[in-house]
Amino acid sequence: MEESFVPFRGIKNDLRGRQQCYKQDWTGGLRAGFRILAPTTYIFFASAIPVISFGEQLERDTDGVLTAVQTLASTALCGIIHSIIGGQPLLILGVAEPTVIMYTFMFNFAKNRPDLGSQLFLAWTGWVCVWTAILLFLLAILGACSIINRFTRLAGELFGLLIAMLFMQQAIKGLVDEFRIPERKNPKLLEFQPSWRFANGMFALVLSFGLLLTALRSRKARSWQYGSGSLRGFIADYGVPLMVLVWTAVSYTPAGTIPKGIPRRLFSPNPWSPGAYENWTVIKDMLKVPVLYIIGAFIPATMIAVLYYFDHSVASQLAQQKEFNLRKPPSFHYDLLLLGFLTIICGLIGIPPANGVIPQSPMHTKSLATLKHQLLRKRLLATARKCMHKNASLGQVYESMQEAYQQMQTPLIYQEPSAQGLKELKESTIQMASKKGNINGPVDETVFDVEKEIDDLLPVEVKEQRLSNLLQAIMVGGCVAAMPFIKRIPTSVLWGYFAFMAIESLPGNQFWERILLLFTAPSRRYKVLEEYHATFVETVPFKTIAVFTIFQTAYLFVCFGITWIPIAGVLFPLMIMFLVPVRQYILPKFFKGAHLQDLDAAEYEESPAVPFNLVTERELVRTASFADDGEILDGMITRSRGEIRRMCSPKVTSSTATPSKEFKSLQSPRFSEKVYSPRVNELRREPSPGNVGRGPFSPRTNEARPSILGKGG
Amino acid sequence: MEESFVPFRGIKNDLRGRQQCYKQDWTGGLRAGFRILAPTTYIFFASAIPVISFGEQLERDTDGVLTAVQTLASTALCGIIHSIIGGQPLLILGVAEPTVIMYTFMFNFAKNRPDLGSQLFLAWTGWVCVWTAILLFLLAILGACSIINRFTRLAGELFGLLIAMLFMQQAIKGLVDEFRIPERKNPKLLEFQPSWRFANGMFALVLSFGLLLTALRSRKARSWQYGSGSLRGFIADYGVPLMVLVWTAVSYTPAGTIPKGIPRRLFSPNPWSPGAYENWTVIKDMLKVPVLYIIGAFIPATMIAVLYYFDHSVASQLAQQKEFNLRKPPSFHYDLLLLGFLTIICGLIGIPPANGVIPQSPMHTKSLATLKHQLLRKRLLATARKCMHKNASLGQVYESMQEAYQQMQTPLIYQEPSAQGLKELKESTIQMASKKGNINGPVDETVFDVEKEIDDLLPVEVKEQRLSNLLQAIMVGGCVAAMPFIKRIPTSVLWGYFAFMAIESLPGNQFWERILLLFTAPSRRYKVLEEYHATFVETVPFKTIAVFTIFQTAYLFVCFGITWIPIAGVLFPLMIMFLVPVRQYILPKFFKGAHLQDLDAAEYEESPAVPFNLVTERELVRTASFADDGEILDGMITRSRGEIRRMCSPKVTSSTATPSKEFKSLQSPRFSEKVYSPRVNELRREPSPGNVGRGPFSPRTNEARPSILGKGG
Repeated sequence: MEESFVPFRGIKNDLRGRQQCYKQDWTGGLRAGFRILAPTTYIFFASAIPVISFGEQLERDTDGVLTAVQTLASTALCGIIHSIIGGQPLLILGVAEPTVIMYTFMFNFAKNRPDLGSQLFLAWTGWVCVWTAILLFLLAILGACSIINRFTRLAGELFGLLIAMLFMQQAIKGLVDEFRIPERKNPKLLEFQPSWRFANGMFALVLSFGLLLTALRSRKARSWQYGSGSLRGFIADYGVPLMVLVWTAVSYTPAGTIPKGIPRRLFSPNPWSPGAYENWTVIKDMLKVPVLYIIGAFIPATMIAVLYYFDHSVASQLAQQKEFNLRKPPSFHYDLLLLGFLTIICGLIGIPPANGVIPQSPMHTKSLATLKHQLLRKRLLATARKCMHKNASLGQVYESMQEAYQQMQTPLIYQEPSAQGLKELKESTIQMASKKGNINGPVDETVFDVEKEIDDLLPVEVKEQRLSNLLQAIMVGGCVAAMPFIKRIPTSVLWGYFAFMAIESLPGNQFWERILLLFTAPSRRYKVLEEYHATFVETVPFKTIAVFTIFQTAYLFVCFGITWIPIAGVLFPLMIMFLVPVRQYILPKFFKGAHLQDLDAAEYEESPAVPFNLVTERELVRTASFADDGEILDGMITRSRGEIRRMCSPKVTSSTATPSKEFKSLQSPRFSEKVYSPRVNELRREPSPGNVGRGPFSPRTNEARPSILGKGG
Repeated sequence: MEESFVPFRGIKNDLRGRQQCYKQDWTGGLRAGFRILAPTTYIFFASAIPVISFGEQLERDTDGVLTAVQTLASTALCGIIHSIIGGQPLLILGVAEPTVIMYTFMFNFAKNRPDLGSQLFLAWTGWVCVWTAILLFLLAILGACSIINRFTRLAGELFGLLIAMLFMQQAIKGLVDEFRIPERKNPKLLEFQPSWRFANGMFALVLSFGLLLTALRSRKARSWQYGSGSLRGFIADYGVPLMVLVWTAVSYTPAGTIPKGIPRRLFSPNPWSPGAYENWTVIKDMLKVPVLYIIGAFIPATMIAVLYYFDHSVASQLAQQKEFNLRKPPSFHYDLLLLGFLTIICGLIGIPPANGVIPQSPMHTKSLATLKHQLLRKRLLATARKCMHKNASLGQVYESMQEAYQQMQTPLIYQEPSAQGLKELKESTIQMASKKGNINGPVDETVFDVEKEIDDLLPVEVKEQRLSNLLQAIMVGGCVAAMPFIKRIPTSVLWGYFAFMAIESLPGNQFWERILLLFTAPSRRYKVLEEYHATFVETVPFKTIAVFTIFQTAYLFVCFGITWIPIAGVLFPLMIMFLVPVRQYILPKFFKGAHLQDLDAAEYEESPAVPFNLVTERELVRTASFADDGEILDGMITRSRGEIRRMCSPKVTSSTATPSKEFKSLQSPRFSEKVYSPRVNELRREPSPGNVGRGPFSPRTNEARPSILGKGG
């Protein structure tokens, strides 16, 4: 995306790009069949549970004017509209914590004004939304989103980790509150006696940790050793919602012996109870708001606009990171414009607006990558087996697999066919096969392990479509009707789920991985290198990594501290935006360009593209071949971001800047304390006598295996 | 051990064997220095905690006549005597559950007799102990232990799993009881109100699962990626006792807000409270017991004698399994004789006798193997580094390492030096080194990764000595004095510890691994082969494994069911002894000899030794080289029993019986459903083009790495 501030250009570009793949957005989703339900339910829970919980919070803080019914309605409405006419369908919309804080602040303000009061509160927020929308329109039209280019990994990952911290904080706070008497409740109730309160707290600990641990386990079900493949797949796809059900059921097991209020459950009015619809007619009251307040609404509106501009763009960016190899274009400006319209709609019907959310949006992309992997895998497997059944040779098998693969590619008009990687794939594989001695004869599965081969060949690709987003938004809407059932979920299960979301958002975050690296014993650092790892681990000296990470962590804690400031805390995104000039002008004074490039590639200073570096890519795939189907993918899309990035932007700068040092360090006995990559090469070299004496970055074509990975870059 | 029933011969042999290494038993222990404290505290907790818990059970069941003070005293007394003058110092003695059940039964019997009553109960048990001792003497003298040879893996592992099930049952029962009002307690107390009872149960769940999960994690600390090596080592060594402390501390956190009885804690009289010493003078009363009862005492005595004979021998056998590569001789007969004396002593001072216990005894051996590994590693590392400092060549480095290794070997008079494996080691390593091109030049750590090499070379060896056993027994004795502190441990932490012990005893149990294999998805079975695995996985068809395992599981459940029968249940070992004729005469009718041999090698039908099969061994080590220091050992002594066994008894029978089938199956497309080993070879072959076209068991000397592993066999 080029940086341009010509009015409307950004929106036009976005519309043009997304229009070309709009039809495919639907047909692709429909072709996935029932499997689309896996990412849909996964995201539905990740989307609905926080929204319900924020709704509860809002209800407490606004004396019941706004409840979970309103937050769910807003999330559903905005989600449905965005998934149908929005730009980037990977982006998930929802009512987020900052919105809740802003609304709480506005309620407290309005409540104490005699000419406003809680009756006109919603009407006044309607005006705030109008102002917010106007500001968002301006930002979208003027191309403000194109500075997203300047928003690097440094800032994006810091923001991601901050959100994870906030979710975790919410989980801990919620758990602690389970031991206390809730506000606005009658403390004389049986369940608030000290004994039952303590019992409730302990039960909450059991339920939330139960949910957290089992949910984390179930996500890894695909790599379990036990149980049939379909069972494992089912648990991996639907394990998290399943666990919410299981632990809700567990919460009912001691029902006979304990008071009804234990464990505490969600509290929300039924949508059909009287008064639940009061807010929908807010538009009538809007003109009753005094003019002074209509103008004054501009002040909170600027804060909300800055917040939404930032959150929405960053959520979208994090859902479209390079390592996902997306085929379809982004749509930052148009989406911001649409967000403006959505904000007005929400304001006029008196519900808090929804915006793009983290970590749900990147979670959505990840789950769609798993889906695409399964679909590709199934199709190629069937093709290869059919071919082998006809006594085809290995060459023919690959040819037909390639054809099938091609057919499954999204046919995009504006993109040239991405087959160049495939040709190489076929040739090299056949070359390898000829070594096995049966290139032209018929192959069967004893010689050629199809499942294994396909797992090795499949790249990270995302099933980009609109169906999963639409369906999850509809399901969130369904929650309003399903309130009587949802109310059965214990709040403690919710806190467990919050912790689960915080932990789920960590893998793949290089900032987090660098923090872990700081705590990794020096003697164990080679283990990091044995697994998927980012480029910087090999090219940047440990000290530089440490300093960079400590700076980033300190910054993170400053941001976290700011969120604790009563109201200005909502504006913590400004602190993160401030990272852009810090990164551009200050950091280069303290860090070498090549190192910064590897630790935090900014597009504006990235090196020009050079011919695609096959060797490193092959090496990558060789590593991948040790893993196993589901796990391979999990590894690629979570742990390996840097590795995939490395293929997208070959490190010209760093590979000219550091090798001499590395070769030198190979001679020094203490090299492993600084740059320890040669050690791994030492380790890897041992089992195979063929490549003795080569340097750490020498090619290994003899045992390399080609792949179509990364050709999407 | 040959089978011989000549009176006294077994005892004489035992004494002669152990006498020769008696001095070394002490010097070796002392030389280990402070590190001996790691296995000592580990076993101390494993020994003391169940004994305390059984003591509590006994107190409830005998109306307070016997308490934890008595069970601890017995365990300490017997442990100290056995560790000093016993035969096999790896064997851990303790008051076990069957003893508790027998004593409960005898108490209920005595209580209801007017001429015995609870006053003469202990005097009567004194007579039971005398009879038991006489029977044990007879068994020891007549060489009854030599039939331990007929007691195969089938029976031993079944027994081990049964004990694990009983421990787990105790843990679950204990946890469920935390929700109930304990017997003999005043149900009107505050802490037994429904609300506090429920709170107590939930708190117990938190504490016990907390202990279980953290203890299991801490045992794996050595392979953690984070934290310094010494910290990780400390946690792995002392993590379990540490966790008992941590969770006991956690149990005090809500102290201010909850009644004193929550969570429930151990209940035991202080040893200095009046009446705690009543039992020590039982010998005075023994002649007051009516003659009829003195004679009648023979009946429970036979049961106890059978029980002890069995338990003591099996515990000893499981602590000395072949895969531990022990150097010092066993001592079954003499130990049984000594057990007789210990039983008399305990009987005369009115405390329940202790006998050899599972799983503590094998846990003891495992922890000593870890200790020995650390000691060897440290020494060899220092030697190698010193050598390299002097610019020695690789050959010289190995020579000095070999010398150091030799010096650390237990110098046993009756054994020939076990250096033959070492020679091979040196030669092959030098050969490998020469490929690297610098055989005679000086080496440094960039070329030669000492730590890695040493980890690969070190065999499983056990620090066989008496000090750890003596120290742990003294510490158990110290518990009597430390009762006021021990009483602070919550009972729920105890239940968590019981579950921990049950789970800790599972890895390495081939029976358990076969059960897991039944649940392993067919497509994942190759993963089992990629890791350490037993011979049978490769040589026995899956169906045979399944049938054999299902039979064994059914038998296990029958045994487990028998333990539920009120009193006869104590004699479940008879059911396990019955497995000896079943194995010898019935199983061979249903299973092929070669398969039985691999699934359950019985010494009496084992094939004669053939020249040591280097190829398979090398293959093993090649696999091992992927692992990491602490983990390597963990793997070798836990997961890999079969693999090490394979080196001790080369499978002549099976390798002639099955290969033809396997090669055939290599041609069939569906081979993986029956014998799936070729698949792994297929997988392994791929990355290295050098060995294309070889059969599944062909040698791979080009990439093999030699080791001194297994030369102890």
